[in-house]
Amino acid sequence: MVSEEIRKNFASDNVTPACPEVMEAMLRANEGSVGSYGGDDLSVSLDAKFSKLFETEVAVFPLVTGTAANSVALSALVSPYGSVLCDQSAHINTDEGGAPEFFTHGAKLVGIPSADGRMDPATLPPALKTNKGAGVLAPPFQALSLTQATEWGTVYDLQTLQALCAIAHDHEIPVHMDGARLGNAIANLGCTPAETTWKSGVDVLTFGGTKNGAMAAEAVVFFINDRTRPLLRDFLRRIKRSGHLWSKQRFLSAQLLALLENNLWLKNAAHANTMAARLVEGLRRHTGAHLPFDVQSNEVFVVLPDQVANHLESQGFGFYRWPTPDGVQGTLIRLVTSFYTRPQDVDALLDAISE
Amino acid sequence: MVSEEIRKNFASDNVTPACPEVMEAMLRANEGSVGSYGGDDLSVSLDAKFSKLFETEVAVFPLVTGTAANSVALSALVSPYGSVLCDQSAHINTDEGGAPEFFTHGAKLVGIPSADGRMDPATLPPALKTNKGAGVLAPPFQALSLTQATEWGTVYDLQTLQALCAIAHDHEIPVHMDGARLGNAIANLGCTPAETTWKSGVDVLTFGGTKNGAMAAEAVVFFINDRTRPLLRDFLRRIKRSGHLWSKQRFLSAQLLALLENNLWLKNAAHANTMAARLVEGLRRHTGAHLPFDVQSNEVFVVLPDQVANHLESQGFGFYRWPTPDGVQGTLIRLVTSFYTRPQDVDALLDAISE
Amino acid sequence: MVSEEIRKNFASDNVTPACPEVMEAMLRANEGSVGSYGGDDLSVSLDAKFSKLFETEVAVFPLVTGTAANSVALSALVSPYGSVLCDQSAHINTDEGGAPEFFTHGAKLVGIPSADGRMDPATLPPALKTNKGAGVLAPPFQALSLTQATEWGTVYDLQTLQALCAIAHDHEIPVHMDGARLGNAIANLGCTPAETTWKSGVDVLTFGGTKNGAMAAEAVVFFINDRTRPLLRDFLRRIKRSGHLWSKQRFLSAQLLALLENNLWLKNAAHANTMAARLVEGLRRHTGAHLPFDVQSNEVFVVLPDQVANHLESQGFGFYRWPTPDGVQGTLIRLVTSFYTRPQDVDALLDAISE
Amino acid sequence: MVSEEIRKNFASDNVTPACPEVMEAMLRANEGSVGSYGGDDLSVSLDAKFSKLFETEVAVFPLVTGTAANSVALSALVSPYGSVLCDQSAHINTDEGGAPEFFTHGAKLVGIPSADGRMDPATLPPALKTNKGAGVLAPPFQALSLTQATEWGTVYDLQTLQALCAIAHDHEIPVHMDGARLGNAIANLGCTPAETTWKSGVDVLTFGGTKNGAMAAEAVVFFINDRTRPLLRDFLRRIKRSGHLWSKQRFLSAQLLALLENNLWLKNAAHANTMAARLVEGLRRHTGAHLPFDVQSNEVFVVLPDQVANHLESQGFGFYRWPTPDGVQGTLIRLVTSFYTRPQDVDALLDAISE
Repeated sequence: MVSEEIRKNFASDNVTPACPEVMEAMLRANEGSVGSYGGDDLSVSLDAKFSKLFETEVAVFPLVTGTAANSVALSALVSPYGSVLCDQSAHINTDEGGAPEFFTHGAKLVGIPSADGRMDPATLPPALKTNKGAGVLAPPFQALSLTQATEWGTVYDLQTLQALCAIAHDHEIPVHMDGARLGNAIANLGCTPAETTWKSGVDVLTFGGTKNGAMAAEAVVFFINDRTRPLLRDFLRRIKRSGHLWSKQRFLSAQLLALLENNLWLKNAAHANTMAARLVEGLRRHTGAHLPFDVQSNEVFVVLPDQVANHLESQGFGFYRWPTPDGVQGTLIRLVTSFYTRPQDVDALLDAISE
Repeated sequence: MVSEEIRKNFASDNVTPACPEVMEAMLRANEGSVGSYGGDDLSVSLDAKFSKLFETEVAVFPLVTGTAANSVALSALVSPYGSVLCDQSAHINTDEGGAPEFFTHGAKLVGIPSADGRMDPATLPPALKTNKGAGVLAPPFQALSLTQATEWGTVYDLQTLQALCAIAHDHEIPVHMDGARLGNAIANLGCTPAETTWKSGVDVLTFGGTKNGAMAAEAVVFFINDRTRPLLRDFLRRIKRSGHLWSKQRFLSAQLLALLENNLWLKNAAHANTMAARLVEGLRRHTGAHLPFDVQSNEVFVVLPDQVANHLESQGFGFYRWPTPDGVQGTLIRLVTSFYTRPQDVDALLDAISE
Repeated sequence: MVSEEIRKNFASDNVTPACPEVMEAMLRANEGSVGSYGGDDLSVSLDAKFSKLFETEVAVFPLVTGTAANSVALSALVSPYGSVLCDQSAHINTDEGGAPEFFTHGAKLVGIPSADGRMDPATLPPALKTNKGAGVLAPPFQALSLTQATEWGTVYDLQTLQALCAIAHDHEIPVHMDGARLGNAIANLGCTPAETTWKSGVDVLTFGGTKNGAMAAEAVVFFINDRTRPLLRDFLRRIKRSGHLWSKQRFLSAQLLALLENNLWLKNAAHANTMAARLVEGLRRHTGAHLPFDVQSNEVFVVLPDQVANHLESQGFGFYRWPTPDGVQGTLIRLVTSFYTRPQDVDALLDAISE
Repeated sequence: MVSEEIRKNFASDNVTPACPEVMEAMLRANEGSVGSYGGDDLSVSLDAKFSKLFETEVAVFPLVTGTAANSVALSALVSPYGSVLCDQSAHINTDEGGAPEFFTHGAKLVGIPSADGRMDPATLPPALKTNKGAGVLAPPFQALSLTQATEWGTVYDLQTLQALCAIAHDHEIPVHMDGARLGNAIANLGCTPAETTWKSGVDVLTFGGTKNGAMAAEAVVFFINDRTRPLLRDFLRRIKRSGHLWSKQRFLSAQLLALLENNLWLKNAAHANTMAARLVEGLRRHTGAHLPFDVQSNEVFVVLPDQVANHLESQGFGFYRWPTPDGVQGTLIRLVTSFYTRPQDVDALLDAISE
């Protein structure tokens, strides 16, 4: 049986299947004729369900990929002649094939360097001042985009989030959060979904589902306020125009609702974090392993001796190699856990490293 | 039981669920960790399966909506400063929220008027001549896009298709086919998939799945030739950049493969056509009903007395009203059948019209 | 001497040099260091000078081509997912190489057919209704663009202009006027610049200079009202981003100011119209000449026997051939007069036609 | 007389008038009717004149601003889903209001940090490797853009240029040079125009005129080779579509030809450099002045005590303040000389600094 075999693929949280609850919800949704383009009951219920989750009024738009969700959200925030402030390592800046530039019609992403993927609030004021000073020659900052958890597996604490959002709002700049791994961040912080989002100052959220048990489902969540209200009117047009409006939208909504049901998304995320922690614990016992970042979610970056990395590969374990930082010996690899990772899978990986 | 009730929604072929075979295929695909972004076995097999279907070498890219498939295909064919020739009634011109313009970065769609959605080959040469004469002032035609079956439910015969494609190719213009309802056209023509596509001169096809039993799956199919070969290299980048590259692509590919298995897509389409023919037969018996177009697929446009249209609505039947042509009495409505329509559903609709 | 020779080039009003007053103004501007990017005194004075001309508060942005002026103006009015209503023959729709689509990031131009380039107010309501009915599937109309004088040399009367603008405003759609030949229209109507623009309901104007004696200068003129005020804030960014912000803007402003001085632009335009009228008078005497449109500005469209058209060409006269309408015998050509055309030039052309 | 007064504006080389030879050429061009859109004799002669200057076959396209020239050139080199490698300080990256992103439809500019505006060849291979490794997730590098002279007033030596171009070409990446101050670089290097461009590996050049004595004229110069030849066919369409095709193009071409005549452009540039050198010599005598970069062209960056900078301002001298680097005391300002700067102007500035 497949489930008895070792699951060796740690390449990403998107190599996994959908979790059973999600598939069952899709099967249940597959009954009868319903209104298309969001006219079905499941889709209609999204706003209320997410409003309850976030303890405030939200408007929710389901989308099929994180790239689409991030990019269409940003396109509502910034004009083509504007720019987006983000961490230099941000997914939107490095890994989405230019999608934010496509959806925004060429807005500029300005990446601020940081130590571990978490933007330092002290770096914002100089950037804002320089931008303003350049007048018409520089695309004005019109959005701040924060990634929670970050690309390096670290998590912003609430205080830092609040500081960053406050600076942005002081300059009339709305805040977007890329929450592809929001559940993992919340599981780490032990806070509520509201606290790490709108209560900290986030205006628009990309709520991640695919990496957390969905087949293919994300959502753009607008926290309703004076900054976001004007953006809602034409948001569906942006989705339609990018080919992202599903005619049979019920199947997108069903996935999201299944994740919300009984806080499945948080349980899945907490499990993934636990597996990552188990992995870290094991790695710490190896003298040859070096962990360059705090592991606060489900991504484990580790420098291993080259022969260990090669051995893992030869044993069929799946992972990505990263450019090893200057001056570091060995190979930097990324190991990602998920709802689908089991203790025995982690242990098998650790065993292989020990060999 | 739901299946015993009358299915009254004739608004579109996208109000339907997925057909059982498609859902079963998705369930089967939901096992184990596999390569993401098309690295899974199902995705890898697409080219071979579609090549067999079309009896020639093709390259296949699965996409989630017809809007995305049409638009990304066109973006590979035309430059931002080019233009696309299409029928004035074409879906790409009227119903995709500006998506072709978005994906092509502003290429112009030039709609040629026709009597029934089928472009007349005689209208092409004057348009081509005028365009060329305008030199740098007019965006040059760089693609011809044909819809098969058309927006008005009519179907191009092979001879007309060949004539249109030949003119385009004579001017070094490649041909795209919007085949959202290609199965319905083939069922009507009684030809092979190859005959109504590349054998007639089509270079790139949007293969429709969603309206024909899929949950949400279409495909861009490139028929490999000298015109299309150079377009393949970066096509995946276009898909990624528009947020349309699924990380768990197996679920998109599984749907397409299920449709191909045992020619399910053609069976579904033939059934839909049969239901439409049954509807037409009934409508012809009504003196008050007027059918402005030949019904050659699964779309039935019919002018009914206003009170009949209102009565249908009050009885819970779903359909769309169209602008009634000048000089015509009554209400023009569209009735769409699908794999999900049963004889008793058509008969119930006809009974309601007779009341 | 050049001035004694016959000026045989009737191809366009842009084959001419700049008029002497414009060149002198540029020479006068060529003194000393001044602020760049519009910081010079001439540029600063534009708003006041144009406000006086139009008898209302305006904001003026000088641009170097009509294509740029029209397109950047439209880009402020419509969103990328919106559309522009215009006459099917409009310059923005047929002759600007896709520039409006470029500047607006793919907004759709929807051309309404008309008899002679003048949109019929009766055609607007059905178009507006169909567009609204299509919801998210159709790019919403966000601007109405009118050409005064039109591409066929006809001129809107004030009543028609007012009717068109009123319908647009009733639907919360702002109105743009392409006034590449506005002076010619005013000379024909005998009205004030205010009457044929904002007093009729125009919100944003492309004020044409190049065809009327400038070297290369047009202006986008915003008539300040609630619809236009929000558009001003970032308009300069749009200009900069398209490479249209001159560092030495004084040379652009000097041209415009020279045209305004002593109403030179209206004198130039009136002269061009007079020359066109002289031409028409002569053509009417020829039995073989057919004038398909009213000549109300400086463009004369005339159908001539093929051999006459060929003879003109062989005699060195410059003009463009147009596609001859179906069922018409002969060759449709366009003859354009300008400030630079003299009576003897027109007479020489008429003589050549008589030969 | 104006010419006797001190010229105090050192803010930029674009605050100047046009030089007399340019204005005279424009006056000479203002005679008679000529072909529009580049059909005039002056425009037709551009290719030959520039080919002679560069000692190789070139294709030349006149444009009115450097922003437009850089951006339209890049749009021919990179696809919307590609990216451009440049120095982080490059004008295209920081000072053109997002124009490169606009013209390229959202291609990404990837800025590589450097010490003084000159990209270090050693930084290229790691960037290229990372980019390639990211596959479809990262926009591929499709152009290298080098600025000569750089934004910090430094000049690439030929060896470095050749090294950078060779690396790019090895990766099939064409090279663009932003030569807004190319004349100043050549005057500094004492090389030929050919040596610092195509002989070093440059494929496409923005030839700067406006900062060097023109009213408003730049040119995109394609050095004809296998990389550039395919780009020429539609380049005029790109220009037209951005509103940059002048109908009366003779006035743009006349300026460029005047700059080439008797090597006026190099004389103007050499004079500007001499004035900058005079300024540097004077500044070096001041203990309070710190010059952070080599002054190799006509831009002088200098850190002055705050009160000195304020004093200059109060005396009416024009200059821009730059963000002062961390840890540096004083105010960083930029002083720019030009063909219009005279020794007495420099001396007056130095005197004011000494006060």
